[in-house]
Amino acid sequence: MASSDVVWHAAEVSKQSRAALKQQRPCIIWFTGLSGSGKSTIANALEEHLAAAGQHTYLLDGDNVRHGLNQDLGFTDEDRVENIRRVGEVAALFVDAGLIVIAAFISPFRSERELVRNLVDSDEFIEVYMSTPLATCEERDPKGLYGRARAGLIRNFTGIDSAYQPPETADLVLDTSSDDVQSCVSRLLTVLTERGILPPAAGISQS
Amino acid sequence: MASSDVVWHAAEVSKQSRAALKQQRPCIIWFTGLSGSGKSTIANALEEHLAAAGQHTYLLDGDNVRHGLNQDLGFTDEDRVENIRRVGEVAALFVDAGLIVIAAFISPFRSERELVRNLVDSDEFIEVYMSTPLATCEERDPKGLYGRARAGLIRNFTGIDSAYQPPETADLVLDTSSDDVQSCVSRLLTVLTERGILPPAAGISQS
Repeated sequence: MASSDVVWHAAEVSKQSRAALKQQRPCIIWFTGLSGSGKSTIANALEEHLAAAGQHTYLLDGDNVRHGLNQDLGFTDEDRVENIRRVGEVAALFVDAGLIVIAAFISPFRSERELVRNLVDSDEFIEVYMSTPLATCEERDPKGLYGRARAGLIRNFTGIDSAYQPPETADLVLDTSSDDVQSCVSRLLTVLTERGILPPAAGISQS
Repeated sequence: MASSDVVWHAAEVSKQSRAALKQQRPCIIWFTGLSGSGKSTIANALEEHLAAAGQHTYLLDGDNVRHGLNQDLGFTDEDRVENIRRVGEVAALFVDAGLIVIAAFISPFRSERELVRNLVDSDEFIEVYMSTPLATCEERDPKGLYGRARAGLIRNFTGIDSAYQPPETADLVLDTSSDDVQSCVSRLLTVLTERGILPPAAGISQS
């Protein structure tokens, strides 16, 4: 049996009907950047704010997904691409289910971020580049991973011996070496309101 | 870098807070049975009913997932197990997000259904066995797959040259050769109400 034998069975409850039920516009807010750049911190702060405002969100996090769905994958370039491919497919299912998906992944390669972007409608993917400099990320080293990578105990570590390709046209660039959490969340809310993801009121209630 | 280097980052918005926001109890309603046994038909009818009642549901369907997340998998026993493993992990993420997940997969092996059951709390997995006899499924043959399997054009087809292991302790057994769609949905709603997944009112409004 080949994949051509698979017949698409369209669910009869649509993305539109689910989103209408929830009174929000589903999308993927994709955080990309080095380990220690603040992706998870800002993603969590954003999710808390949106949940408090009654929005239905879900946070997909590189670390969390690796304990479950992607536990069979390692950190070679090939496995990293498959990691992001699966996360992208799951994020697209959540968008189809009507949720605002917040994803925080190093996702170092432009091609893999493009792949995810192409899984949803063009106005459903918001790319947020955490541009915090490597020196700051390495100094923070919240998980001790840079130390281990510099010591040669971890291979293929982004920023050390594996490349990070910065986005060329991110929807928002945040640098947590200069911007505090509240300022980052405020800028995110402004973008989400401008894009019509959030109603104007949610933007006003940001402070 | 090994999986032991991965640090669990607990999301700060919890399953409980999301479920409270949605006023429903998340779970997986898992339909298992032969191709043509009525899984997708009953799953869709159930989802329509629940969505109309304001519940937030999502349908994961064997065919649909195979076009995205699991497009790299075939139909060998090994790939079938990986197919269900990934679907189970995704379903568990949806439960964590507060949704009622309706899953319709042949899922022929007891061990793989147990694996999914163990990904969520014990009261969050409802197993529905579609016991429609093979002869009826084969007569229906909605996708022409039995014909192709009998002709030897498809290998590893459940019920023909690949085993189906019926559940021993399903929460509900439905046979669409004798029960109509409305009757199946009514019985499902009764079980879901008894389990506290749905409030009593949703059970009453079933007809």
